[in-house]
Amino acid sequence: MLIPAAQNLSIEISVLAEAEDSSAKLAATMVGDFTDLATVSEFAKGVDVITFDHEHVPLTILEELEASGVSVQPPARALAHAQNKLLMRRALEKIAAPNPIWRAVRSEQELEKFLAEHGPEVIVKTPIGGYDGKGVRVVSDVKQVSDWLAPEKLSKLGGELLAEQKVEFVRELAQLSARSPSGEFRAMELVETRQEKGVCSEVIAPAPDVSAETIAKAADIARSIAEALAVTGNFAVEMFEGPTGELVVNELAMRPHNSGHFSIEGATTSQFEQHLRAVLDLPLGETELLARAAVMVNLLGISDEKDYLENYRAAMAAVPEAKIHSYGKKTRIGRKLGHITVLGQDWKQALLRAERARDLLLGRS
Amino acid sequence: MLIPAAQNLSIEISVLAEAEDSSAKLAATMVGDFTDLATVSEFAKGVDVITFDHEHVPLTILEELEASGVSVQPPARALAHAQNKLLMRRALEKIAAPNPIWRAVRSEQELEKFLAEHGPEVIVKTPIGGYDGKGVRVVSDVKQVSDWLAPEKLSKLGGELLAEQKVEFVRELAQLSARSPSGEFRAMELVETRQEKGVCSEVIAPAPDVSAETIAKAADIARSIAEALAVTGNFAVEMFEGPTGELVVNELAMRPHNSGHFSIEGATTSQFEQHLRAVLDLPLGETELLARAAVMVNLLGISDEKDYLENYRAAMAAVPEAKIHSYGKKTRIGRKLGHITVLGQDWKQALLRAERARDLLLGRS
Repeated sequence: MLIPAAQNLSIEISVLAEAEDSSAKLAATMVGDFTDLATVSEFAKGVDVITFDHEHVPLTILEELEASGVSVQPPARALAHAQNKLLMRRALEKIAAPNPIWRAVRSEQELEKFLAEHGPEVIVKTPIGGYDGKGVRVVSDVKQVSDWLAPEKLSKLGGELLAEQKVEFVRELAQLSARSPSGEFRAMELVETRQEKGVCSEVIAPAPDVSAETIAKAADIARSIAEALAVTGNFAVEMFEGPTGELVVNELAMRPHNSGHFSIEGATTSQFEQHLRAVLDLPLGETELLARAAVMVNLLGISDEKDYLENYRAAMAAVPEAKIHSYGKKTRIGRKLGHITVLGQDWKQALLRAERARDLLLGRS
Repeated sequence: MLIPAAQNLSIEISVLAEAEDSSAKLAATMVGDFTDLATVSEFAKGVDVITFDHEHVPLTILEELEASGVSVQPPARALAHAQNKLLMRRALEKIAAPNPIWRAVRSEQELEKFLAEHGPEVIVKTPIGGYDGKGVRVVSDVKQVSDWLAPEKLSKLGGELLAEQKVEFVRELAQLSARSPSGEFRAMELVETRQEKGVCSEVIAPAPDVSAETIAKAADIARSIAEALAVTGNFAVEMFEGPTGELVVNELAMRPHNSGHFSIEGATTSQFEQHLRAVLDLPLGETELLARAAVMVNLLGISDEKDYLENYRAAMAAVPEAKIHSYGKKTRIGRKLGHITVLGQDWKQALLRAERARDLLLGRS
């Protein structure tokens, strides 16, 4: 989704794609292993700036690139915090950004103690490698993470797990924003995100019925994090909103993020254009919404077999205002196959329309 | 500009590009001569539908493709009217669409007579091959088109020239719309277009201060033409608006058109997505504007030397709401290098902002 934004601005984009069947293959300049230094270094020779659409490129590789003079945006020292949740918690603590109660645990005994103090249920996360609900478990008994605490596995995970208090929240919010290497910062509208089995299913922009205070607080949190951690490019701060409006940071993503897809049609500058501007240190774009509400719903596969593309006609006919994005992936239960955005005067109405288009596309009766 | 729209919908797009340096090369599946039947037939084997981003593919080739079962959209019998202005005038006359006074002329004598009746100045056009002011002359003396009337040249032009009364008009309007093979029709907002030396320089959507009657009339004209001529895909009807609101059809374009670029960010469905939906006979998209005004200005080169891209920083910093589209072409005086769209509450303000971004980009002081 970065590619159309790049084309508009005549920015030449080169893509190191993981595999021939990834959706980036449309524009793949090179197919190769992003965990291999030689591959990434070879790729880096042809570009001015390296950036990412996921956070899994090993830090050691990025540090090598930086040492050899390549511009990596966001820089390795920032990206480290999106790769390692313990590192993130420690950094947020330092700048007094709102963490849940948390602890690094290395053993069943330590987790037992945390459970006793903050249970009956707590959240345990692997510091590295998790996404879309993977690497996250709700735990009421230390045995539920025995596998992660086994010495060999624990050492692979960095020697510690992250235990967090199970935060009581009324909803989840996400603050998208962007920062450039020279320090310009722009926040997007604060959005509400809704999850289904740990995967983002719906995003509502702007977050409905949110106080001016919360809006300002969320943007402040994003700005403090960006500045303290030297984040560049587009990034997302995922937060819980508590019953009395308090915010707690859940996750950080340093890249264009699912919670910002609404901005492709819904905002003056999409998160993809903003990301390109930011990593190239160009002036950032205006982020104003183009409608009173922009709602995005994900197309999550409900079958391993039927091709949802056959339902285009029905969805387009019923919801002519829906902006359908298909990622060209084979369907699989739970897989993100695409998303749909609907703009409107009223978020509830827009959400109903987007859900209608989604259900017709997926062939859900 | 069709490509991002195709990617969003997972429509595979193949491009037969004219030359390696054309801006379509980004996605060129094949480089070759579109006037060569063998080349185009070979290309046609790999696609479900053939469509165009210009009208210059020879009709004979399209007719051959159709005879061999290829879906050509718009079909040859429709496209003929965009290729040949005399054919267009005759077809519009048949359906009582508003033509200027016109005549086919084959000699200086015939033109002399038309000049005497409708002069002192008339417009003479070559029926085929003209665009952006080329093939159009304002004539007060038959000698001004002696070259076109020379027997050899005239025979190349089809044996006749088109002479038209010089229409008195207060401004130019364009009606973008789309029609699918199964007959669905949707009009966009009527827009005002402004030209500089025969080349479109600015487009204002919706056309300011236009009566409801004119809006209805313009959409009616577009619909009648589309139905009578079996047009499919996105098309533009360029019109003159006379001092008392009367409309006269100036030109037809059967493809996404410069006067519709505002729709990329300015309308729920862009002309490019609409064109794809239409030629694939998918349901058409909603065309509503996303702001009270959407203004587009073309980036027309003012130098043969300086690279305007060096001015990105200044333009982006001064006008963060401008949507800049660069076509990746080398600069040349008068060449369309790109365009800029600004949305806003007020068209005059949006136009000023777009012009400011344009002037900064071009380095105009």
